[in-house]
Amino acid sequence: MKKISVLGAGSWGTALALVLADNHHDVHMWGHRQELIDQINEKHENHDYLPNVALPASIQATTDMKQALEGTDAIIVAVPTKAIREVLKQANEFITSKVPFVHVSKGIEPDTLLRISQMIEQEVPKAKREAVVVLSGPSHAEEVGLRHPTTVTVSSEHIEAAQFVQDLFMNNNFRVYTNPDVIGVEIGGALKNIIALAAGITDGLGYGDNAKAALITRGLAEIARLGTKMGGNPLTFAGLTGVGDLIVTCTSVHSRNWRCGNLLGKGYKLEEVLEKMGMVVEGVRTTKGAYQLSKEYKVSMPITEALYGVLFEGKKVDDAVESLMARVKTHEMEDLVNMFENQTK
Amino acid sequence: MKKISVLGAGSWGTALALVLADNHHDVHMWGHRQELIDQINEKHENHDYLPNVALPASIQATTDMKQALEGTDAIIVAVPTKAIREVLKQANEFITSKVPFVHVSKGIEPDTLLRISQMIEQEVPKAKREAVVVLSGPSHAEEVGLRHPTTVTVSSEHIEAAQFVQDLFMNNNFRVYTNPDVIGVEIGGALKNIIALAAGITDGLGYGDNAKAALITRGLAEIARLGTKMGGNPLTFAGLTGVGDLIVTCTSVHSRNWRCGNLLGKGYKLEEVLEKMGMVVEGVRTTKGAYQLSKEYKVSMPITEALYGVLFEGKKVDDAVESLMARVKTHEMEDLVNMFENQTK
Repeated sequence: MKKISVLGAGSWGTALALVLADNHHDVHMWGHRQELIDQINEKHENHDYLPNVALPASIQATTDMKQALEGTDAIIVAVPTKAIREVLKQANEFITSKVPFVHVSKGIEPDTLLRISQMIEQEVPKAKREAVVVLSGPSHAEEVGLRHPTTVTVSSEHIEAAQFVQDLFMNNNFRVYTNPDVIGVEIGGALKNIIALAAGITDGLGYGDNAKAALITRGLAEIARLGTKMGGNPLTFAGLTGVGDLIVTCTSVHSRNWRCGNLLGKGYKLEEVLEKMGMVVEGVRTTKGAYQLSKEYKVSMPITEALYGVLFEGKKVDDAVESLMARVKTHEMEDLVNMFENQTK
Repeated sequence: MKKISVLGAGSWGTALALVLADNHHDVHMWGHRQELIDQINEKHENHDYLPNVALPASIQATTDMKQALEGTDAIIVAVPTKAIREVLKQANEFITSKVPFVHVSKGIEPDTLLRISQMIEQEVPKAKREAVVVLSGPSHAEEVGLRHPTTVTVSSEHIEAAQFVQDLFMNNNFRVYTNPDVIGVEIGGALKNIIALAAGITDGLGYGDNAKAALITRGLAEIARLGTKMGGNPLTFAGLTGVGDLIVTCTSVHSRNWRCGNLLGKGYKLEEVLEKMGMVVEGVRTTKGAYQLSKEYKVSMPITEALYGVLFEGKKVDDAVESLMARVKTHEMEDLVNMFENQTK
């Protein structure tokens, strides 16, 4: 039994706390809203973010960072990407020895263009972190909460750290694979939210499943194009954290990014949609970061560009989608060869 | 304007006839059921297979093969794979000059283990065929009938033939790409039906979207593993006829193979399901062919094997799925590297 600290009491943090508690670990969740924390401790439910799931009574929640981190064996970082730096700044002073950090967030920081593991490396001094591990894959929190079969990947530059995290989470319902390609895993996880937003838009506009499948296929090519240029392994994009997570995020009713896009496609303004949803939609912020990365690395990313236009330049959704569909290209291999250019040239 | 003969009056043949008629070609459909042919000619609808779609009045239908083929510029073969040889035998005597054949079926012939284009090459004498072209991709007939945006790939060993077919079909709603990799295009199209059957089963059993995404990801790896071993280009499996078609077939309500699997997952017997559906479910027959191919080429195909057990050896669906999920493998890259072994070794 290990003491595990889960920072963040949203849907995903709560679902992962449940997996860890099922595996008989001593799970301490940290969150900043007292009311939510009390609900978890007293009613053993997180009604706001993971309703109708009875949490194991062994899970303890607190707003006290010191209490959450004291003597911990691993820290799970499960806060929105926007809050990561601030939460880590708070955490630092209570970390007394080297611990592994596991992040489960998906995004690219705008302007700095850093991946989440790089942000953690910046914020947490070397003396306090043993390794940074990313956990990613096709995994709606709602289904993990119901203990439905789920398969994820953990990745780290330190293979032993990845294996340690694999052992923490692995059980009959929650299967954990390792993959040494941190860049590929993080880029795939972050960028699929952009394609899910776009898929939501085409669905909102009523384009249908044929168009959506074509969009997802092109989306995968564009993610892999950037990811390999940044140093990721092309094969990772064909795996769970690439195509697997892309599929689930673009086609499942549980996906927030898809839902956000869907409302945009139906004609709502971005501000209205975000207010309506009341949850963080990572893809919006990631679109900015990915757009900047496409310029930095000089990689063609037509879907990201079109979405950037809609979200940040006031372009109309139907014009943006029209221009994507009408692209004058007739030889499929051009796209595909570009996708794996690092490997094929 | 070309005279185009469409052999087969099912959903897909009818939808493609509509695309060709929209492009102002002289379209002649052939079918063997007089009642259905009369309906198309008189009511300009194919109520049995593509209901609620008004067909252009210019489309002519006939049960007379001679009439359908006289002076034709291209023959579209749109019959179930099981009927292809018989229909081509009938057609042969009425073909008076070399014409291109375009097939739009998806399957592997059991026992001979031939792809559709190879079956056509066997059945049609060289003097009567100019080239064989395959048209494939994420394209539910129902949506093509509604003129929703759809993107497909055409492939042939003869690039000019592929370009000719691209020109025949291309319009604003129906985008056509070329790809020279016939093997990859045909194998991807055929085998995705197997994964769709399996995805239907996991959905029928209530496993959820996380499990389905993991299954589809592994399915793609297994398709690519066989396809590259047979000589296909690994990149093709990342394209429209690979991952694109796989996604649409596994996640869309329109997919017959998914629907068939779904009913199997809910506990119905195969014979009951096929009777209930009253349409050809290509994946059932393809599972047999693919299973035989996996033995022939010595390629590991766990999903195909599990499904073969369910369909042809009376294995229970839940046992088959359990054994898939419990596979003892923890390093994702093993699967992925195997997937592209021709390229990485």
